Amino acid sequence: MKTENGSGPSAQLARVRQSLENVKVLFDAAVMAIARQCSEHARLKNTLLDAYQASSYELAWACAEWQAAYHLCHGPDSGQALDQGLNLTYAMDAAQSILTRLERVYADVGMDPEPIAILAYSQAFQSLRRELCAAHQKAKLGAMAIDHPEKIGRVELHPDVAMIQDAFQRFAQDVVRPQATQIHRKDLTVPDDILSGMCSMGAFGLSIPENHGGSADGSPNDLPAMLAVTETLSDASLGAAGSLLTRPEILARALLEGGTQAQKDHWLPRMASGEVLCAIAITEPDHGSDVARLTLKAHRTPQGWLLNGAKTWCTFAGKAHLIMVVARTESQPGYQGLSLFLVDKPSFDGHEFMHRQPSGGHLSGRAIPTIGYRGMHSFDLHFEDYLVPDSQLIGAEKGRGRGFYYTMAGMTGGRMQTAARAAGVMHAALTEAIAYVKDRTLFGTPLASHQLTQVKICDMAALYAAARKLAYAVSHQLSTGGNPMQASLVKLLACRAAEHVTRDAQQLHGGLGYAEETAVSRHFVDARVLSIFEGAEETLALKVISRSLYESALSAADATHQPTTA
Amino acid sequence: MKTENGSGPSAQLARVRQSLENVKVLFDAAVMAIARQCSEHARLKNTLLDAYQASSYELAWACAEWQAAYHLCHGPDSGQALDQGLNLTYAMDAAQSILTRLERVYADVGMDPEPIAILAYSQAFQSLRRELCAAHQKAKLGAMAIDHPEKIGRVELHPDVAMIQDAFQRFAQDVVRPQATQIHRKDLTVPDDILSGMCSMGAFGLSIPENHGGSADGSPNDLPAMLAVTETLSDASLGAAGSLLTRPEILARALLEGGTQAQKDHWLPRMASGEVLCAIAITEPDHGSDVARLTLKAHRTPQGWLLNGAKTWCTFAGKAHLIMVVARTESQPGYQGLSLFLVDKPSFDGHEFMHRQPSGGHLSGRAIPTIGYRGMHSFDLHFEDYLVPDSQLIGAEKGRGRGFYYTMAGMTGGRMQTAARAAGVMHAALTEAIAYVKDRTLFGTPLASHQLTQVKICDMAALYAAARKLAYAVSHQLSTGGNPMQASLVKLLACRAAEHVTRDAQQLHGGLGYAEETAVSRHFVDARVLSIFEGAEETLALKVISRSLYESALSAADATHQPTTA
Repeated sequence: MKTENGSGPSAQLARVRQSLENVKVLFDAAVMAIARQCSEHARLKNTLLDAYQASSYELAWACAEWQAAYHLCHGPDSGQALDQGLNLTYAMDAAQSILTRLERVYADVGMDPEPIAILAYSQAFQSLRRELCAAHQKAKLGAMAIDHPEKIGRVELHPDVAMIQDAFQRFAQDVVRPQATQIHRKDLTVPDDILSGMCSMGAFGLSIPENHGGSADGSPNDLPAMLAVTETLSDASLGAAGSLLTRPEILARALLEGGTQAQKDHWLPRMASGEVLCAIAITEPDHGSDVARLTLKAHRTPQGWLLNGAKTWCTFAGKAHLIMVVARTESQPGYQGLSLFLVDKPSFDGHEFMHRQPSGGHLSGRAIPTIGYRGMHSFDLHFEDYLVPDSQLIGAEKGRGRGFYYTMAGMTGGRMQTAARAAGVMHAALTEAIAYVKDRTLFGTPLASHQLTQVKICDMAALYAAARKLAYAVSHQLSTGGNPMQASLVKLLACRAAEHVTRDAQQLHGGLGYAEETAVSRHFVDARVLSIFEGAEETLALKVISRSLYESALSAADATHQPTTA
Repeated sequence: MKTENGSGPSAQLARVRQSLENVKVLFDAAVMAIARQCSEHARLKNTLLDAYQASSYELAWACAEWQAAYHLCHGPDSGQALDQGLNLTYAMDAAQSILTRLERVYADVGMDPEPIAILAYSQAFQSLRRELCAAHQKAKLGAMAIDHPEKIGRVELHPDVAMIQDAFQRFAQDVVRPQATQIHRKDLTVPDDILSGMCSMGAFGLSIPENHGGSADGSPNDLPAMLAVTETLSDASLGAAGSLLTRPEILARALLEGGTQAQKDHWLPRMASGEVLCAIAITEPDHGSDVARLTLKAHRTPQGWLLNGAKTWCTFAGKAHLIMVVARTESQPGYQGLSLFLVDKPSFDGHEFMHRQPSGGHLSGRAIPTIGYRGMHSFDLHFEDYLVPDSQLIGAEKGRGRGFYYTMAGMTGGRMQTAARAAGVMHAALTEAIAYVKDRTLFGTPLASHQLTQVKICDMAALYAAARKLAYAVSHQLSTGGNPMQASLVKLLACRAAEHVTRDAQQLHGGLGYAEETAVSRHFVDARVLSIFEGAEETLALKVISRSLYESALSAADATHQPTTA
């Protein structure tokens, strides 16, 4: 790939890297400005931050885009022209998007916008934008992507991980994909052949350590393997396959973090084999992302704990044998009053269930009909005097009031999996869009040869590749002690990208894309859940990402006694 | 409303107008550059245009945004702070968006980007962006919109139009809204009480002249009345009410344009009363937006015309008594070989039908299951030796080969109606989002008081108001001979805005927004059809809008023998 000023790909790469560094300086300045305005004695004040929600939101997105661009420009080089092209196109589109966001933030904070103008319209930045993001360049990349869809967003996986992914790819292709449309259209429950297949392949043991009956060996391959399996299954069906592993992961982490030895010994091997299917009940009807205000009560009696209250959006609660329930056991308000219970119940098929205990308590469930993400069903749950033995309080006495922290242990993995789910859905939509435009003729020429089609495919491919590559890169960082905030970043980026990619894939299909018989219509409605659940994007942006940015900025400034970068 | 440099609203308005003029100069230069590069002897060449599809697409969007912004800054002033604020916020966001698009176009065409930089970072432009689009300003407008949703996007309607809208508002509220969720969720056919109510209110006569039994009096109120009724009904249900008037409009225009006196006399009064329900069959399985390549054959026999072939996406074909079918009667390729037939058939309920003629021919239909836009059902149709009497060829002998032109006569109204449908869906989603955020508390404070919520509501309100106001403004222009391309512009803008507004309304609802029981989930899937049908956005952008811009630029240049603006 030659550029218009004669420099080869490596010189171009160096120039893009430099542009990203220049963008970062402007970004850091905005982060620092808000951190200072919203802190007292180097501590953030929520009341002050509330006046900068919109800017914090922009900065979180800017940070996610920047991280993705940075990784693409510093990650492994495949030597493939398509790959290199998509990397750099994405990076310069991200740089532009970040500058637009910063322009808003600078205006909000009252900072001088001139440095943004100087960078945005510098000769260096403008020529990169022209070389890498002009329509004819995107069209060329789009045409390459259409010719070789298998080369889009490739990541070099460890041979062990690649082997696992291959196995699940066959399973997804042979068992899941043929059923996916019917499960969605008829709102069926995940069929047993999918569950038994996953059990026999050890899918449920991926996040459980070897000494507890799982296959996680503590190596840096554990998380990438989970992502690889999740995206492969999500490519075939988000609701009936790709999302089956999120719940065991969250519960396993909570047990590993806080469970007694007996609890771990009893439950983990059963979860790993799939003998015990599980669900997680956190959200309540009046408290979505606001865990500190949960109200479901657990009351101690001589027979054990009595649970009373409601939960909602408890996915897979019907089929599950075991539900991890976050309940308020202590009188303290906020996080400190919460504990975790292992609620076992019979497995039910269908959309409603009622389980009555001999002691007189009961638990009822009703699947909430949703526009997509069907198969596992998400339930409203009602607990009434539901008795849970003492032995089922995670961590026993020591676990009282620790429920929030044990739950959080699994959230990082849950968010990474959600990014992988988004990657799988995007891959499916992109693959179908490419197949469709190759097949279809419009105004006398193949749709695939229209410049606008090629540009759209290029943008979709770049988004998919960026999100996927960042997810794997972060999974490696997290395996070696990286900042868990990165999981929120990847989740944010990948889920919105999935909305964009599925929307455009549908648009490229024309009317057919709106028909339920066309798989891309399912991907579109499935993708829509991703930015809502497992941490709504507003919550991640405001409560996790921007907060973490401000805190880093303040502590760096504090450490050096002078302004510095986050 | 005071601005930071002390000038009042009228001075601010004058400055925004000036900014828009400055943007227009940059826009016109790009249009002219592509028009020149893609023409020979002042005539556009398709083969040359194909290399600028992406830029043409950007210019079409830029044009739509600019028209909306221009109208908001030159339309009637309500004197209301919310209204004025949303107008100016939209205008400056649009100005920014247009500059970003132009930056891409200039890069593509090889134009010097410096004029864009000079404008974008001029003191004047930057202070307007800060005064009008900064988060705290948007939050203020958002809070006002939350307090007074009834004031968002208000248009001064002629008293006659307002009276009609009031009547339909009550009907929509009392008859349509209570059934809307069930019709969608159970994929029911539009129920008879909705149809009979609309008949008795004269809805089907809105686009039919008084002398043919309708209520259109040829005044400039005809089109606004149609929009008002359409948006009001779409607010309650897109699929079961708001879309019922599009088909009669298209057929009535075709008949008025080309029908024989006998055809007009027979059909128009029956259509106006609703005694005859109708459908339009244009699209074929292999030809979406590409009308010139339609293949359904009509073959002349002594008994009449025999129709053979397939149509798809024929909405309401089941219930309809009369289908307008575009068929190839002539040997000429392209538009010239097409004619229109009035195919009458029995009305069927349900999702499938088969009509056998005594002569041995038949017409079968199957409703295509779709993710939204349910109620009327869109059908695949198969004609086999289906006999249509000579008298049912629109225009009789004179109509042979004129089918395309007669169809086009109704497209302008169809696109305007589609913009109104988008406005109705947006209004419903925005209203529900506002009600929800007022009701819901998150992290201890009402969701409505969060800055990010207010900013999002402001953006949604501004998009809705801009699209709605532009639609009405264009409807007045069209009534007095405006350029029909404007209908495509409004359709493009309003339909994409509806996707954005419904998406964000859903996001503000959190998990509930994904539940089928929450109306906003229906608005989201309904909105998705709007950018696909009645002229897909790519087709409108490339084949109608940008083409028209280039042609105007060339003819203006030709007229003055020097470069000028479109």
